[in-house]
Amino acid sequence: MSKLIGNAIVGQSGGPTAAINATLSGVIRGCFAAHEDGTIGTVYGMRNGIDGLSNGKYIDLSYMWNDEKQLKMLENTPAAALGSCRRKLPDPMGDDAVYTKLFELFRQLDIRYFFYIGGNDSMDTAAKLDKYAKRIGYDIRVMGVPKTIDNDLCETDHTPGFGSAAKYIANTVTEVIADCAVYDVPAVTVIEIMGRDTGWLTSASGAGAAVGNPIPDLIYFPEKVFDLEKLYADVEKALAKHPNVVIAVSEGIRFADGTFVGEDKSGAVDVFGHKQLSGAAKTVASAIKAKFGCKTRGIELNTVQRCASHIASLTDLTESVCIGKEAVKAAIGGASGCTIVYKRVSNTPYTVNYETANVDLIANRIKYLPDSYINAEANGITEECLAYLMPLIAGETEPVYENGIVKHYFF
Amino acid sequence: MSKLIGNAIVGQSGGPTAAINATLSGVIRGCFAAHEDGTIGTVYGMRNGIDGLSNGKYIDLSYMWNDEKQLKMLENTPAAALGSCRRKLPDPMGDDAVYTKLFELFRQLDIRYFFYIGGNDSMDTAAKLDKYAKRIGYDIRVMGVPKTIDNDLCETDHTPGFGSAAKYIANTVTEVIADCAVYDVPAVTVIEIMGRDTGWLTSASGAGAAVGNPIPDLIYFPEKVFDLEKLYADVEKALAKHPNVVIAVSEGIRFADGTFVGEDKSGAVDVFGHKQLSGAAKTVASAIKAKFGCKTRGIELNTVQRCASHIASLTDLTESVCIGKEAVKAAIGGASGCTIVYKRVSNTPYTVNYETANVDLIANRIKYLPDSYINAEANGITEECLAYLMPLIAGETEPVYENGIVKHYFF
Repeated sequence: MSKLIGNAIVGQSGGPTAAINATLSGVIRGCFAAHEDGTIGTVYGMRNGIDGLSNGKYIDLSYMWNDEKQLKMLENTPAAALGSCRRKLPDPMGDDAVYTKLFELFRQLDIRYFFYIGGNDSMDTAAKLDKYAKRIGYDIRVMGVPKTIDNDLCETDHTPGFGSAAKYIANTVTEVIADCAVYDVPAVTVIEIMGRDTGWLTSASGAGAAVGNPIPDLIYFPEKVFDLEKLYADVEKALAKHPNVVIAVSEGIRFADGTFVGEDKSGAVDVFGHKQLSGAAKTVASAIKAKFGCKTRGIELNTVQRCASHIASLTDLTESVCIGKEAVKAAIGGASGCTIVYKRVSNTPYTVNYETANVDLIANRIKYLPDSYINAEANGITEECLAYLMPLIAGETEPVYENGIVKHYFF
Repeated sequence: MSKLIGNAIVGQSGGPTAAINATLSGVIRGCFAAHEDGTIGTVYGMRNGIDGLSNGKYIDLSYMWNDEKQLKMLENTPAAALGSCRRKLPDPMGDDAVYTKLFELFRQLDIRYFFYIGGNDSMDTAAKLDKYAKRIGYDIRVMGVPKTIDNDLCETDHTPGFGSAAKYIANTVTEVIADCAVYDVPAVTVIEIMGRDTGWLTSASGAGAAVGNPIPDLIYFPEKVFDLEKLYADVEKALAKHPNVVIAVSEGIRFADGTFVGEDKSGAVDVFGHKQLSGAAKTVASAIKAKFGCKTRGIELNTVQRCASHIASLTDLTESVCIGKEAVKAAIGGASGCTIVYKRVSNTPYTVNYETANVDLIANRIKYLPDSYINAEANGITEECLAYLMPLIAGETEPVYENGIVKHYFF
């Protein structure tokens, strides 16, 4: 395949993570290497993803591409430094104005490499742009680069961003358990963890077991039906062992009828007339209080778990930079309509390979926590799950503190 | 004053913090030094504070008092490793059985030094034990050692535990602001911070300003009346500046009539018939949604902010160890019915002295955030507040990670 010479553009899309800027740095680093060998002229950054780009919002990133200090600071900054969006592109077989606008800009800027860092919705964007380009015969390499704390992408062993969120969760849950253990009166604490329809992040609440720290007495996953009678039986057993019971629940747990546990079915409204969304933790805590009469507390880890870059996983950030660089290499090698994925080679020593996968195999699909990662009682994780998790949260980064506060990078 | 020879006992009481185990380590270290010079025979630890002790629950801590590795790990463990309690002792001028029981145990174990690490309620315990001992003529030195993330103790410049919680808050708020900034549609995020009736911890949400990080657009303190019309005017101005508005509120903010903003006045009950406590953040977010129609989110930092030892302040942990050692020294020097306090000597360089204060001046009293720390609009902090805060959150500790997870110490 002949060498395609031109400029590159990179964008971030979907929910932020602690590692998406590391991948951005990887793409910028990869583009610089390709600039050195004469393939890529410059690299642009979309502001607010495809949405901002369709309104002509982009910046030239080459000012920083060989500035190690700035790139390092970017890698340790949470969220999406270029800004993000949630926009679904129309059918690329039609002639929607957004494609005309985007490809006009591509021609004008001589964009021949397009990198889109995002989750499964964003892979849909990459897939559509690739199809549209092929349809109109515009020579461009479109690459998806995965990211999501949810770890729910198919075809990849794990996703950039998952390891850091998992590390935050594993450590914070350990700390909360220590906090809960101080009084010797019966009390149940319920911690709600993100992850939408999959239990990957919730499984990380049990990772402390690998180093001998206490872990939640009970862990509930969205892959299994949540049943109140089962909960009561589980809690009764746990309270018989020690007074301070800690439960981790996924935000996505559902009752047998398919409704979310966190949905409020009482029709209660707050003082401003708004329907309350109580959340899974508060609902479960409330049910336990009603049943056992003990003190309960519901804790939502909330968005903090996806942006806690001060406790990011070194494995995750290192791989997230690499996957960005690999995306550039693969595109220069001729790949398009693809995503770069991790293939785990072994656990000890932990090693991964980088491969490409057709973006259609990832877009709009979901990878669930396997049955073999959930214990027989459907309330905890297995050794196999632990073995999967541990390498991903290993290693500490070195955030740059100034007077006790981590400095962030801003474009 | 003649040298009092005997054994020591130390306990932890009230809500846990990230630094209360560092103070425990300081007391143990101080007792070891006093053991070396022949004053203290051994040091015992109460399990679950005065409550456990009155049921005969204690352990001998001398097995670890010259074990640097174990003491270091204890210092980096959050919450109260000996267990805590919330128990108010009866009037020491009466003859309640609890005093008889406790002093029988003191005689039996030859306890001559009593150290109680806690907040203002716990100082009440220290004060009462001291009075009772004096009344019955039992020779013992009773010392309170302060701790509380709330920083609401009188007579001391700040409290052990505050700096670490403040550091967690300053950094986490910075991360949440980065997370909120990724989309360019109007949205308001409200972060709820602990601190009961005082705004010390909430003020730390603005500490990022000292290093050029963005801080919340608006910060509301319990020291000032919370008014919805004022909130709407403030939010309108903030939204005019940028689409992503972040607000920090103290859990203790109240309306003019004295009711907590976080109290639910709609009488709404959840699916189990329990009255909902919506919390200040959710209530404020709900009010803003009703008024402006934009996306809103309420985030409670919850107990995570008091146990996040992985991001503890080095200043805080170092001082927390020192204050424990100083308590032992002061007691040996003859002090009783006292608390050790910090007196700030200067900000640059930051230095503190350790002094004793009569425990009655601290017990059951509250120190509020001064007016000079709150801006004229009552929605932010001043430079004077920043100058007070910054030394307290400075410096990073070195938690011992094993496979990506911080190991904790357990008795």
